[in-house]
Amino acid sequence: MSEELAEGLVAGGATRPAGFLADGVFCGIKEHDPAGEKRDVGCLVSELHATVAGVFTENKVKAAPVLVDQERMQLGVTCGIVYCSGNANACTGNQGLANAREMTALLANQVGVAADEILVCSTGVIGKQLPMDIVRDGISRLAPARERHLEAAVAMLTTDEWPKEAAAEFEANGHTYAVGGMAKGAAMIHPNMATMLAYLTTDAPVARSFLQTTLKRAVDDSFHMISVDGDTSTNDTVLALANGAVGGPEINGGAAGEALETALRAVAVHLAKEIVRNAEGATKMFGVEVRGAASVAAARLVGRSVASSSLVKTAFLGSDPNWGRIMCAAGYSGVDFDPDKASLWLEDMLLFQNGTPTDFDEDAASTLLDRKQSLFILDLADGNATATAWGCDLTTEYVIFNSDYRT
Amino acid sequence: MSEELAEGLVAGGATRPAGFLADGVFCGIKEHDPAGEKRDVGCLVSELHATVAGVFTENKVKAAPVLVDQERMQLGVTCGIVYCSGNANACTGNQGLANAREMTALLANQVGVAADEILVCSTGVIGKQLPMDIVRDGISRLAPARERHLEAAVAMLTTDEWPKEAAAEFEANGHTYAVGGMAKGAAMIHPNMATMLAYLTTDAPVARSFLQTTLKRAVDDSFHMISVDGDTSTNDTVLALANGAVGGPEINGGAAGEALETALRAVAVHLAKEIVRNAEGATKMFGVEVRGAASVAAARLVGRSVASSSLVKTAFLGSDPNWGRIMCAAGYSGVDFDPDKASLWLEDMLLFQNGTPTDFDEDAASTLLDRKQSLFILDLADGNATATAWGCDLTTEYVIFNSDYRT
Repeated sequence: MSEELAEGLVAGGATRPAGFLADGVFCGIKEHDPAGEKRDVGCLVSELHATVAGVFTENKVKAAPVLVDQERMQLGVTCGIVYCSGNANACTGNQGLANAREMTALLANQVGVAADEILVCSTGVIGKQLPMDIVRDGISRLAPARERHLEAAVAMLTTDEWPKEAAAEFEANGHTYAVGGMAKGAAMIHPNMATMLAYLTTDAPVARSFLQTTLKRAVDDSFHMISVDGDTSTNDTVLALANGAVGGPEINGGAAGEALETALRAVAVHLAKEIVRNAEGATKMFGVEVRGAASVAAARLVGRSVASSSLVKTAFLGSDPNWGRIMCAAGYSGVDFDPDKASLWLEDMLLFQNGTPTDFDEDAASTLLDRKQSLFILDLADGNATATAWGCDLTTEYVIFNSDYRT
Repeated sequence: MSEELAEGLVAGGATRPAGFLADGVFCGIKEHDPAGEKRDVGCLVSELHATVAGVFTENKVKAAPVLVDQERMQLGVTCGIVYCSGNANACTGNQGLANAREMTALLANQVGVAADEILVCSTGVIGKQLPMDIVRDGISRLAPARERHLEAAVAMLTTDEWPKEAAAEFEANGHTYAVGGMAKGAAMIHPNMATMLAYLTTDAPVARSFLQTTLKRAVDDSFHMISVDGDTSTNDTVLALANGAVGGPEINGGAAGEALETALRAVAVHLAKEIVRNAEGATKMFGVEVRGAASVAAARLVGRSVASSSLVKTAFLGSDPNWGRIMCAAGYSGVDFDPDKASLWLEDMLLFQNGTPTDFDEDAASTLLDRKQSLFILDLADGNATATAWGCDLTTEYVIFNSDYRT
């Protein structure tokens, strides 16, 4: 877990903003652990109706909770999220849809709202029906409270080693607002648990369409810029809830909108980097800062292609400054650029200049790559746009974990 | 190596068709092996001017030999190919282009043709200049002969465990023609050796544009349907040479064209499957037969997405009938289909039917997956098009080999 706060962050998680409560308990979807540290059912509740925005998986095979949430996003407001981990409720047909809806009805009943005012998420194994008897019991034992954000963050984990929380503050219209969040990663120690989930909260009042726009931009710079293994899950979901508990005029762009977006991005980027740092089997992480791209979209594509390459990831594991693999992955990203103008650095060490190899010190470069975090900078010399992607090493542990038989 | 001939194949390799000669020697680009089994410079020569067609990497970072060949394809005819393994001659700037051209001039001089009548390929580490002193010596020692096809097939290998050759025959216009070929795989035991190269030959006379069309179709069904790790190399090249040595009217479609294409596809599919079977670290392979797709392009996309998924490949390593990962990979392929209509089989065992899990026997399925080759059949129920992709398991050996430091 992070020992100090990253720049721009404050302590706390999804309940740092006023009016948000949370909890997480163990019901038995996951195998019992004698230490009693596991949780597999959780909730995040807003005391006020919250404006809601969402970004969902683009996989054509969408889990039942994703389908239910996408339908309910049309309401534009929500009172909270109920979720479980250990079972994805994906590829489960009509029974899966009924089970997802029942989960929302159970939490809605407890907090005194309508079922369609609750959203739902699941993460875990694909193709198994939820064990609703124990899920019902688990939901009945949820006692949402502001101080139980860590329990809630633990309840969304699958094979992550630690819970992922972050919070930030911003000033706007004479008020101090908070943004909070929790996430679980694409840490696939057990099969079919590739899902990335994140819930972001704020106590600022935010116009619905602006919340959706600003969430999309923050996700594009954070969760969309990380890669663990290139598999896009059936369940990926990022939800943003703005309950306006602190009051003030509705934020809908301008300076207040920018302040909100800066805080939301800081929380989202931190959670995204935590997911990479804790990726299954990973021992260290690297950034790929793409400069001089013709567009931000091009910079993102190139960065993601490099961060996703199995050959780059294995070379990074071996601290091998094997930059040819980076140029190769940039070349198949789908972005058009002139390799003869491109240059590549590891930190401030020039590896490749205007299309030609340099005589860099390979031992010094290898030593740089031994650290917990490294940065490659790739200048395409094709424009002014930049973007940064993050990846991790591909290890034998990844392979072993993911080939273990499920039962 | 294959012990018996696959259906539709005959014995031999790239020199099975009349008028083709080949050779391969060791010059020292690769580290010396005391057993004297390595070869790293080779050639394939046609005694007659051959019509030529080519399919090249779509990577924007193209190796010097790819750039030289693409230029020379405009001639439409060639007298042969000179190649080396152990060095990709990629990301090497103008010096790399000069070196690639010099390789062709050296072989051209030996066989008495013009330099631009020779094509060139390289495969190996990216970003190092070719050691031209030893390459010159190696080329000078090439003595192309019909019976030296195996030496030539060995000289194109990098980390492949065995040479890959195939041949087939077809009847057309009252003649018996042969098709032959050799390939090297994406077996990346050492870094930066992801390149796939294949040379296909025939002694039939073939119209240039028809040769290009039929090669493209054969490649789409073979080399484009295999995946080892999703990394598209800077050097990938497939060349087809038709020298007309057997005589007869020029083939330009019709029944003769179909006969040629059937033979060419049989050779290409066999070589492609050999590449997967010999993929670095792989212990077994699987096919993904996509049925009921709206188009062949859609079927190919879905098949390739499944065959490339790290999660599918690791589950396959563990003989885990974890079909949710297959549906997930199909879902993010970019192809639109209705998961509620889709069904999935392992051989004749139904795993998923019209969007709902079946109660299949997991132990029996796991036993099926223990074999050297398995077939998944995915019916999208969205049309009549089909395609088959091939993949292999992702093993810890893959990770270890690819993280080894280069020097």
